[in-house]
Amino acid sequence: MNNQIPEDVKENLDSSVLPDEETGATEFLGLPDETIREISNALFEENTEQVDTLLDDLSTSDKAELIEKVTGETRRTLMMGFARHFDADVIPVLDEEVRTGVLENMPADQVAKILSDLDSDDALDIIAPLDTEFQQEIMRKLSAKIRLALEEGLSFPEDSAGRLMQREFVAIPQFWTVGKTIDYLRAARDTLPDDFYDLIVIDPSHHVVGEIPLNKLVRSQRSVKIDSLTLDEVHSIPATMDQEEVATLFRNENLASAPVVDDSGRLIGIITYDDVLFVIDEEAEEDLLKLAGVGQDDLYRTIIPTAFARSRWLFINLLTAFLAASVISLFDATIEKIVALAVLMPIVAGMGGNAGTQAMTVAVRAIATNEISGANAWRVIGKETAVGVLNGLVFALLIGLIAGFWFQNPGLGVVIATAMIINLIVAGFFGSSIPVVLNKFNIDPAVASSVFLTTMTDVIGFFAFLGLASLFLL
Amino acid sequence: MNNQIPEDVKENLDSSVLPDEETGATEFLGLPDETIREISNALFEENTEQVDTLLDDLSTSDKAELIEKVTGETRRTLMMGFARHFDADVIPVLDEEVRTGVLENMPADQVAKILSDLDSDDALDIIAPLDTEFQQEIMRKLSAKIRLALEEGLSFPEDSAGRLMQREFVAIPQFWTVGKTIDYLRAARDTLPDDFYDLIVIDPSHHVVGEIPLNKLVRSQRSVKIDSLTLDEVHSIPATMDQEEVATLFRNENLASAPVVDDSGRLIGIITYDDVLFVIDEEAEEDLLKLAGVGQDDLYRTIIPTAFARSRWLFINLLTAFLAASVISLFDATIEKIVALAVLMPIVAGMGGNAGTQAMTVAVRAIATNEISGANAWRVIGKETAVGVLNGLVFALLIGLIAGFWFQNPGLGVVIATAMIINLIVAGFFGSSIPVVLNKFNIDPAVASSVFLTTMTDVIGFFAFLGLASLFLL
Repeated sequence: MNNQIPEDVKENLDSSVLPDEETGATEFLGLPDETIREISNALFEENTEQVDTLLDDLSTSDKAELIEKVTGETRRTLMMGFARHFDADVIPVLDEEVRTGVLENMPADQVAKILSDLDSDDALDIIAPLDTEFQQEIMRKLSAKIRLALEEGLSFPEDSAGRLMQREFVAIPQFWTVGKTIDYLRAARDTLPDDFYDLIVIDPSHHVVGEIPLNKLVRSQRSVKIDSLTLDEVHSIPATMDQEEVATLFRNENLASAPVVDDSGRLIGIITYDDVLFVIDEEAEEDLLKLAGVGQDDLYRTIIPTAFARSRWLFINLLTAFLAASVISLFDATIEKIVALAVLMPIVAGMGGNAGTQAMTVAVRAIATNEISGANAWRVIGKETAVGVLNGLVFALLIGLIAGFWFQNPGLGVVIATAMIINLIVAGFFGSSIPVVLNKFNIDPAVASSVFLTTMTDVIGFFAFLGLASLFLL
Repeated sequence: MNNQIPEDVKENLDSSVLPDEETGATEFLGLPDETIREISNALFEENTEQVDTLLDDLSTSDKAELIEKVTGETRRTLMMGFARHFDADVIPVLDEEVRTGVLENMPADQVAKILSDLDSDDALDIIAPLDTEFQQEIMRKLSAKIRLALEEGLSFPEDSAGRLMQREFVAIPQFWTVGKTIDYLRAARDTLPDDFYDLIVIDPSHHVVGEIPLNKLVRSQRSVKIDSLTLDEVHSIPATMDQEEVATLFRNENLASAPVVDDSGRLIGIITYDDVLFVIDEEAEEDLLKLAGVGQDDLYRTIIPTAFARSRWLFINLLTAFLAASVISLFDATIEKIVALAVLMPIVAGMGGNAGTQAMTVAVRAIATNEISGANAWRVIGKETAVGVLNGLVFALLIGLIAGFWFQNPGLGVVIATAMIINLIVAGFFGSSIPVVLNKFNIDPAVASSVFLTTMTDVIGFFAFLGLASLFLL
């Protein structure tokens, strides 16, 4: 553990220096609501000068946040009237739903101009969600080189490495030396990509031989051969690899960047850690929202498309709710005689649903992060079932006592206690096994698990409770 | 958009080269289940030679996955009998719950040895979750330098930048030139950290003046002054900053690394993108699990602690379930007369719960990513309520018709339709406003929202449906 502060700096240390104020955290917390209000007010009062002044003070990410948080109308006013503040840097940072809306209000040649200023991965990201006709119109306004690059990019599957990569990279031949490499970098300084972290070492046929992190380059003498610095392990990523796998690779191998290769193993681009950060965010959000039956980017969608997207999920839930209702209707005669059953039955079903959701969420997350596979799936399911048994016993006792005293009916207490044990075991078993089985059949467990699970816990909860009551309490 | 392949390499291109086999994706998919099985079998047969051979072939992340996925017993056998395969590299990669278990089975001096081999951030990560007594015992076996660093690290709040940072960094004074810097890096090559992406520029009193990405250094002539390369914006992170804010900063500013400073603004460490990757993973997982009432690391906990951790959430849900039951019991006379109400009432409550969870999940996620604030909170709540109105109308019609025909009772159809509209509006309004309000009071919306929400949708769902039925159907 060594702090790399050179000795001659240490000697110059001035220990009498006073603490400064610059370390406050607030500056990073994003755009203050007050600024948004000030800008909205200035717009309302048509005080363009003040709007300009306020916008001048904002960083790129602040501007993106502003555009996302204002109303659709204010957004249009800003993008049209103050276009100079919202340049090519702001557009890629915007939420996809918002961005697509903004771009579809622009003429194709303005969009083309923005795309030309961007790295190839950002440009691809922006053009991909636009509608095909508008895409074609924009493509016609682009230079042949950029158009070809974008067309090839669009030919890769969505969420693949090919969509994620940028075509701007620095590749060097293995027979060079450190000195020659540095001379080359200095000579080519203005045509190099803005940011890069590794040099890709290639052979004469463009096949990737290895990578050299820049920090290895800068600490080596000029005479050292590139060959001798090249890392043994090459992490070439096929362009068709799914972005989730790319993220796993970066995580496991601690990569800052990795080369992307085509079918024949030739270098066609690189993926950098910031692309991966984006993927991890996106995948985590997807899983969370899918579990609740919500599509991505829902926050920025307008009312009618949102309602429509949500209604599909509600419709599926309606079907399972009617299934549960039909189970209850089997026992309507019993309920007529003992109304307490109607009062208590949602407790049994609801506790099962909650316990099942706990087990299911753990399983869905573990599958997404590759922590469950054939090797331990049965162990996880067994453990969740055992947890169901334990909590089933505890809550059965509790609910049995409360229900028995409430309705002055010990038999009812025993029946609800038994039903509770059954349903919590069901919850543990199915909560963990449904995601595993769905995953086995290549169905996304985040999307489909909870429908199957609540159907099970509702149907079995009502059936066990009302069925036992019919048998023993009538 | 320019591919940086030097001209003399392009000239050497050999276009007749055949596609190679090395681009297959499978090698990145983690450890195959078959390998886990082979190792378990070899262990069972006490064939230590084969275990050694199999372990020799595994990468660091494969070994971690192996340790995580085998049973507790196999885990101990591996760690004790084949210790040489599980060195300091494997330990930090392990899941925290598993790792803590593994370390607590080791003698303190072995743990101390592992810690000494690691970067300061990894060492801190590993020692922090151990119990205090064992921590002390390990500390006594460490060198004074490492011990002091760890003790200072532990003094920072959990989940703060101070816990995340590593103390190994490369700092240079602003008055140097590129040439002098490169000479220094070459001379200090063996004492530099393994990986670094930026040089931190400091003044004589250790205050951070700026950062220089390595790619700026390598493309500059030797005579260029460090001063002139230093980026204008300094992203110094106070050691007390919350890790979630750190992640937001890295995301917004596209940083590869950033300096961490103490109260007086002096450089004490750096945070790199891989730390942030870890934070983003962790925070996303936390939100997902918290929404379902599950603690972190649940997958690797044993049965009894898991059951206990889950029972708290189930207990809170039990209370709200009894609240809902007591609402139902207000109408027991009505249910006795019209049993169809008992059959249908879970549909009203359940649909409200589902619609509310959709709105809530979007809001919770948007709050976590700073996409909802005072500026747009009311707009989001308004939109969600409007979505509730729309879907309320659609599903009211559907359910009203089905229920009316099923029980041959048009009045019942009208009552359930009305209750459904009311409950879906309630779901949209409270689903979006509960997280916003909780966040305003600094209560984590991911933890508490769903309890409040289901209480609302259950209580109002039952009350509206049964209340309307009592008024109009008796």
